[in-house]
Amino acid sequence: MNSTLPLEPLARVRIVLCHPSHPGNIGAAARAMKTMGLSQLTLVAPKHFPHPEAEARASGAVDVLAQAVVCATLAEALTGTVLVAGMSARRRDLATPFRWAREGAAELLAGTRPGARTNEMKDVALVFGTEAAGLSNEDLGLCHFPVMIQANPEYSSLNLGSAVQLMCYELRLAATSPGAPPSSEAALATAEEIEGFHEHLERVAIASGFLDPAQPKRLMQRLRRLFGRVRLEHDEVSILRGLLTTVEKPKVRRKS
Amino acid sequence: MNSTLPLEPLARVRIVLCHPSHPGNIGAAARAMKTMGLSQLTLVAPKHFPHPEAEARASGAVDVLAQAVVCATLAEALTGTVLVAGMSARRRDLATPFRWAREGAAELLAGTRPGARTNEMKDVALVFGTEAAGLSNEDLGLCHFPVMIQANPEYSSLNLGSAVQLMCYELRLAATSPGAPPSSEAALATAEEIEGFHEHLERVAIASGFLDPAQPKRLMQRLRRLFGRVRLEHDEVSILRGLLTTVEKPKVRRKS
Repeated sequence: MNSTLPLEPLARVRIVLCHPSHPGNIGAAARAMKTMGLSQLTLVAPKHFPHPEAEARASGAVDVLAQAVVCATLAEALTGTVLVAGMSARRRDLATPFRWAREGAAELLAGTRPGARTNEMKDVALVFGTEAAGLSNEDLGLCHFPVMIQANPEYSSLNLGSAVQLMCYELRLAATSPGAPPSSEAALATAEEIEGFHEHLERVAIASGFLDPAQPKRLMQRLRRLFGRVRLEHDEVSILRGLLTTVEKPKVRRKS
Repeated sequence: MNSTLPLEPLARVRIVLCHPSHPGNIGAAARAMKTMGLSQLTLVAPKHFPHPEAEARASGAVDVLAQAVVCATLAEALTGTVLVAGMSARRRDLATPFRWAREGAAELLAGTRPGARTNEMKDVALVFGTEAAGLSNEDLGLCHFPVMIQANPEYSSLNLGSAVQLMCYELRLAATSPGAPPSSEAALATAEEIEGFHEHLERVAIASGFLDPAQPKRLMQRLRRLFGRVRLEHDEVSILRGLLTTVEKPKVRRKS
């Protein structure tokens, strides 16, 4: 059983390389993807593919290469996606404001969320340009927003494989951890719901013997401070209260 | 005058590659460093250096290669540093708790801060092991703390150049962006403490019957996401775990 993390969204992120020149970079991208749990690689008109150098650089990720989809145009590569981000190495005169890598990854990943009517997750894409020139303005025009990686303004030329590595890392972090943008859609809990949770928590702490009501010290204050920092969502309060309720009246026999 | 950002600390971070086998990776590391504004590269007993392949992969960062320092031992490479972090690709039986990449980068960078008596910034080092086996336990023993990059547990083998890229990126973000400085007052919990809390929480959720291990759905994921947003402090983890412990084995009789 995987007790770890919400990684399904990563399987819905297509990494698209436009016109890559060096097969080694395709292999490096495949390896970078797999280390972060991504698997959908799409190549738009690669100069050389398949190629032994791609396989060599892919190392243990040859499965990602083997499943790679080759398309003639970017438009074709984006078929079926609902949200598309395009990498940009420099500020351009763009209609759409760019996102930094971290925010861009989180925003893109949020696009995989199932819609209201169906329960199905959706495909999104992150598009990388050529090693020499990046994405053409035309190709960037097919993206919903540009993403930039913070870099040394005097030398911002990341290797293509390294850029893929870094973005896949940010996608993985966005999928698994912190800072996960308080989804604008997810309804925040009301003050009453939060108060109800704190009272419930205190009741369980007292019933279990953890909190001595005669000497509450600062325990409840510390817990309130902690949960106060989170901006709890409505659903999260429900989960926490569900846990408190079963802990009060366990459904199964306690093991120890 | 540089009106941009507090980047001087980046100049005080030494990137140390121990026994690198492939000169191409040395070049890739140099390029990765320069894209993020780092410049101090130290090589411990490289197999081949200098080497045309290193120069080819360094691309526009040949200056970093040219200034690289070659040492015979890691101890020699660390001379003059006040804080040393070592990359580790797997959990080992370590005396020191590991840090995830982001926290580790921030903590390492904080080590460059001038001391109270002098106004001088200090050198710190980030050490990378060999492509095949990572750092030896002996070499890791010379580091103050290990750093791990979040990765796919089934394939966590990042290319050396990519790992350097990713860490230099985190160092740059730690140097430039807000929210980075780990609050000096309240000690943040380490990644291991947080992981221990999540495991404990899951155990209690299963024992109480709240979580069916056969159908975990997204419950634990939701809880991880929630607590991931808080940046838990060390003391808070202690309180939460104390509560979980009493809930597991109540000190007083349950009322209902």
